[in-house]
Amino acid sequence: MKHGANIYKYASKLGCKPKSIIDFSSNINLYQPKSKIKITNEMIVKYADTSYKDLKQSISNNFGVKKKQIALYNGATSAIFNLLKSINPNKVYLYAPLYGEYEKSISKDSIVVKIDRFNDMDHIPSYNSTVIFVNPSTPDGKYYNLKKLFKTWREQNCTVILDESFLEFESLKSFRGKIETYEKLYIIQSFSKFYSCAGVRIGAVFSNKQNIKQLKQPIWNLSSFDVEFLTQRLNDKKFIKKSQKIHREQKVELKRLLKCSGMFSKVYKSDSNFFLTRSKKSKAIFKHLLDDKILVRTCGSFDYLSNKYLRFAVKDKNSHNKLKRSLRKFCE
Amino acid sequence: MKHGANIYKYASKLGCKPKSIIDFSSNINLYQPKSKIKITNEMIVKYADTSYKDLKQSISNNFGVKKKQIALYNGATSAIFNLLKSINPNKVYLYAPLYGEYEKSISKDSIVVKIDRFNDMDHIPSYNSTVIFVNPSTPDGKYYNLKKLFKTWREQNCTVILDESFLEFESLKSFRGKIETYEKLYIIQSFSKFYSCAGVRIGAVFSNKQNIKQLKQPIWNLSSFDVEFLTQRLNDKKFIKKSQKIHREQKVELKRLLKCSGMFSKVYKSDSNFFLTRSKKSKAIFKHLLDDKILVRTCGSFDYLSNKYLRFAVKDKNSHNKLKRSLRKFCE
Repeated sequence: MKHGANIYKYASKLGCKPKSIIDFSSNINLYQPKSKIKITNEMIVKYADTSYKDLKQSISNNFGVKKKQIALYNGATSAIFNLLKSINPNKVYLYAPLYGEYEKSISKDSIVVKIDRFNDMDHIPSYNSTVIFVNPSTPDGKYYNLKKLFKTWREQNCTVILDESFLEFESLKSFRGKIETYEKLYIIQSFSKFYSCAGVRIGAVFSNKQNIKQLKQPIWNLSSFDVEFLTQRLNDKKFIKKSQKIHREQKVELKRLLKCSGMFSKVYKSDSNFFLTRSKKSKAIFKHLLDDKILVRTCGSFDYLSNKYLRFAVKDKNSHNKLKRSLRKFCE
Repeated sequence: MKHGANIYKYASKLGCKPKSIIDFSSNINLYQPKSKIKITNEMIVKYADTSYKDLKQSISNNFGVKKKQIALYNGATSAIFNLLKSINPNKVYLYAPLYGEYEKSISKDSIVVKIDRFNDMDHIPSYNSTVIFVNPSTPDGKYYNLKKLFKTWREQNCTVILDESFLEFESLKSFRGKIETYEKLYIIQSFSKFYSCAGVRIGAVFSNKQNIKQLKQPIWNLSSFDVEFLTQRLNDKKFIKKSQKIHREQKVELKRLLKCSGMFSKVYKSDSNFFLTRSKKSKAIFKHLLDDKILVRTCGSFDYLSNKYLRFAVKDKNSHNKLKRSLRKFCE
């Protein structure tokens, strides 16, 4: 199962409309501002300005990177594939579990080594290798203080790829400031998670100017609608604070709900907008919830995890209440 | 210069806004329906259904191909690159001049042979090679009856790539009907030209079901806005007829205008929505028009052509009048 997109498959299985399923598998920001984004037909008649300078300026303002430190792709997945293709590493260390896309993006000629984040963080990557770390991580949501690890990576002259797509939910400290001081550092940034727009296909790589220049960037790969939408959303000054406030409130609610349900032997501490849970009954819970039109993320496809693990994204009050009722019914 | 996108460069040179330049270099359908396409924020919160079945159904209805005969990419350029990567041909014959993207999409390990469409159409491609033909062609707009040539290609067991992105303007006969009878046939279809949406990044490959299955199709590469826009536009039953009517009227006007200007030693017969012209003074004409904020397409980058050639896209009455006045001024 990939991201939250399998809602269509399950809707078809259940014989219902996708919108009648509550999708806890999709970890998109739950906040949607009431103000409409202004999109008009006129925006798409002409060819886009492929310098994307307004969008880059907005990204620059919000993320504290310069315009020339940004490469844009049609989605973070596309950014990952293009970056890995450009770097073409001999040996890659993946701090796992992590998104499946990273492993898929690595050429078959490369050596891939997985480091178990839960048990083996002292493992030292070999000299001149490439390391990939997602922070906050997935599917557990843990934020790592990478200071010590980053020192090791530098000493080992590693190319460092950090995915910080879930940082904004809790204003966590970024490594973006280091792209000029460590020349082998690349940051992957998805905008669809925090900026609440899964259907908008824009993702970025942040790195120093020289690295960005050398990356292969396909021209005209961005939808003019998407560029306009994301620019407006980034410029919405209230969006970040409101999102974070609602996120905090709802996260507390979801955590309490999961813990109090008594269904899970562990609810992992999370610094992101989702919770990883463990239970011997996970398979049955998944099925029971699905019968109630609640879709959650099974974690059997993640390294070092199994079908005992389920991931729940933070949702609105109404969705949480339905989840609560369904879990209660399962116990009865 | 690529497509019509250099309007931004020239706007910056001229110190004016892009929208104050009349862009005859962009060969996008001039017709824009007044009815607005309905785009809402809700469409982009959720992950898209990556089967894109509604869009494929609409394409199927309008283009007479089955859903399983369609592969979608974020733009025709992306479709071209992915198709050529998948086919990975040893030897490619390009019927030139044609879009620069085709040559760029061919691996450096392949042999590329160019066939001069104007003078060398009897050239027989070698056995098992790949041929690429754009019909109607660009930048001249000529529509070729390919019956005889196609027979030769089949006899030579060629993989055939036909780009039919400009067929709709004049309802010309397509080769789509042959994708099931000749298994090595692929059709490239851009939607941005005729469906008047350069900013929408969706393009397609049509081929038989087996070929489509084997093509590498990146997931989630389409913007949900774009998918929604294109689906609605394809479903707009009046769009095709209205477009073709306006196109016919305006094309006659532009042709007369160019011929009567006395500026060009040749105005090529066109079966598309643009005219290729030849003049010894083309360089000066280009500069003069640009000073009047009229941008046309220079053709020096096309094989077998030179800076003596300019291409003019069919535009609305107002734009034609401005062009007429500016050309008249040039003569005085």
